[in-house]
Amino acid sequence: MTTLTEKLAAVQMVLLDVDGVLTEGRIVYADSGEEIKSFSVRDGYGIRMMLDAGIQVGIVTGRHSPALRHRCLDLGIKMIHEGARQKAPLLAAIMADTGLSAAAIAFMGDDLPDLPIMTRVGCAVAVADAHEELRRRADMVTTARGGRGAVRELAEALLKARGKWDSLLSSLTE
Amino acid sequence: MTTLTEKLAAVQMVLLDVDGVLTEGRIVYADSGEEIKSFSVRDGYGIRMMLDAGIQVGIVTGRHSPALRHRCLDLGIKMIHEGARQKAPLLAAIMADTGLSAAAIAFMGDDLPDLPIMTRVGCAVAVADAHEELRRRADMVTTARGGRGAVRELAEALLKARGKWDSLLSSLTE
Amino acid sequence: MTTLTEKLAAVQMVLLDVDGVLTEGRIVYADSGEEIKSFSVRDGYGIRMMLDAGIQVGIVTGRHSPALRHRCLDLGIKMIHEGARQKAPLLAAIMADTGLSAAAIAFMGDDLPDLPIMTRVGCAVAVADAHEELRRRADMVTTARGGRGAVRELAEALLKARGKWDSLLSSLTE
Amino acid sequence: MTTLTEKLAAVQMVLLDVDGVLTEGRIVYADSGEEIKSFSVRDGYGIRMMLDAGIQVGIVTGRHSPALRHRCLDLGIKMIHEGARQKAPLLAAIMADTGLSAAAIAFMGDDLPDLPIMTRVGCAVAVADAHEELRRRADMVTTARGGRGAVRELAEALLKARGKWDSLLSSLTE
Repeated sequence: MTTLTEKLAAVQMVLLDVDGVLTEGRIVYADSGEEIKSFSVRDGYGIRMMLDAGIQVGIVTGRHSPALRHRCLDLGIKMIHEGARQKAPLLAAIMADTGLSAAAIAFMGDDLPDLPIMTRVGCAVAVADAHEELRRRADMVTTARGGRGAVRELAEALLKARGKWDSLLSSLTE
Repeated sequence: MTTLTEKLAAVQMVLLDVDGVLTEGRIVYADSGEEIKSFSVRDGYGIRMMLDAGIQVGIVTGRHSPALRHRCLDLGIKMIHEGARQKAPLLAAIMADTGLSAAAIAFMGDDLPDLPIMTRVGCAVAVADAHEELRRRADMVTTARGGRGAVRELAEALLKARGKWDSLLSSLTE
Repeated sequence: MTTLTEKLAAVQMVLLDVDGVLTEGRIVYADSGEEIKSFSVRDGYGIRMMLDAGIQVGIVTGRHSPALRHRCLDLGIKMIHEGARQKAPLLAAIMADTGLSAAAIAFMGDDLPDLPIMTRVGCAVAVADAHEELRRRADMVTTARGGRGAVRELAEALLKARGKWDSLLSSLTE
Repeated sequence: MTTLTEKLAAVQMVLLDVDGVLTEGRIVYADSGEEIKSFSVRDGYGIRMMLDAGIQVGIVTGRHSPALRHRCLDLGIKMIHEGARQKAPLLAAIMADTGLSAAAIAFMGDDLPDLPIMTRVGCAVAVADAHEELRRRADMVTTARGGRGAVRELAEALLKARGKWDSLLSSLTE
């Protein structure tokens, strides 16, 4: 049986849901119809660490959000799949495009529409406050909630599984 | 005596207060006078599940909110009653229009102005952080707070009472 | 010695600090310089209850906020004192204008700049998360935090002290 | 060995990270690309107290934020270093410019990019919810979280270490 550390070490691409994962799950509208989205600065640093380590990071969301694209531009995320109501066929397309196997892909989600993709990737991660049906099926449940460091927690777990954490830390404290 | 499950199974229409129920009860103004409202993405999925199951969903609020209407458009909610300071006469009008009996209607509220309508519907639901006078009179008190999953919790309870939950779940995990 | 109930029963005017009392104490700026303020819908209902009961409600704040004025317009609050860095002289002016004695005035605050006015009114109220120097000197400390129902809690305490609570409640549940 | 009180008493300049220290660490975008930042009103009062006591206050952040500059204008903070991805060289430049030694400088941070500067100042402070690698290396860990009073807590600790707290408090309560 594959351990969590082995699963994490095999990951070459991380796919992230947005609402409830990169955010706290609030859909915020101004009267004008403009939407507002809140991200975690520490998740952002985690995403940079993953990209720097050569792990691909992609976004998979059922909604459309210009605010999200501004944040992705900040962080250097280029793979953004919006309007993905059916996440399982999208995963198949991503695997075909990239040539990656399921075992090389991690997905982090929070709610039922994420189940079809969660059950198909090699490393399924649920945020601390995910729906219980996701937490029960996840390979890893973060201790941090969505939008409050869950992505960062996965990023550090991935770096540790690859044995890259200690050198990163000493580069900051030397 | 009717059990909660029986009451839930009889529900054909869910009426929702807005501030404190679909939101966390924050009234947010920009200097310009524009208002901003925060909804829960998971409540939204719950509302879709109810509509898909043939349960009508309506909004009953004492205020007026363009931001709310943007969210309703997202979710496919067409029945929006704004400016409803007196909620009991409105309930009577809704029952007359739709031909539904009180037993077929659930209402979810959080504060005193909701009492007159709560005491008249077949299934009265209070959010976890509702005023104690509502919690004391409710048929069901959610474990989730307003704007943080209370509506979703009702949606799942309704689907379970109708025996539709397991099939929904297996359609997502097959 | 005067009991809290006696002090509350004597109150004819409630003066409220804004940031940390009517709000959670967040100062929110957009890049444009526009500010955004979040109020509690339930505090708003409490303010209406006080006004309906003939209790005057006034705002005393060191800052300037168009967003605040939009909320006051909603609620029917006409007495707004902005830019009040020195709150004690302002209290003296308010007492002179209205002819009210200190015993007829309640003030609710959260931080050190509120101390000079708190120590001069008949009924000094601190929010649950007020600075300890305020909580220690207050006649009443609410169980609710600022911006999360503290004002509402005072409103209900005032109505109960005046013996008006039960009739209000039965008018809603009859 | 120098005690914390001695370290605090030696501080003549406080450098503050922004996201996660002066804010709760949320990066908030509107669809338009405009950013929104939330600060604590009580931190603001703490910053005024430090400036009034002759302690210099500066901002050190890796990002760029017009919203931050609006808040700094409110508070009288003139020293703002934006775009500081490498914080250690910046500290060296600040020390050269001001002639202050490391012992005269406090820094408050929350995350790994703050480590290089934290390990070089005389008084390193981490917010309650800082990354554990910062908390472990800090001279002081606040009980308040970033954006929720951490800066205020440091301000009061500095005034107390300088023996200025009691006189400030009595000036407010006399």
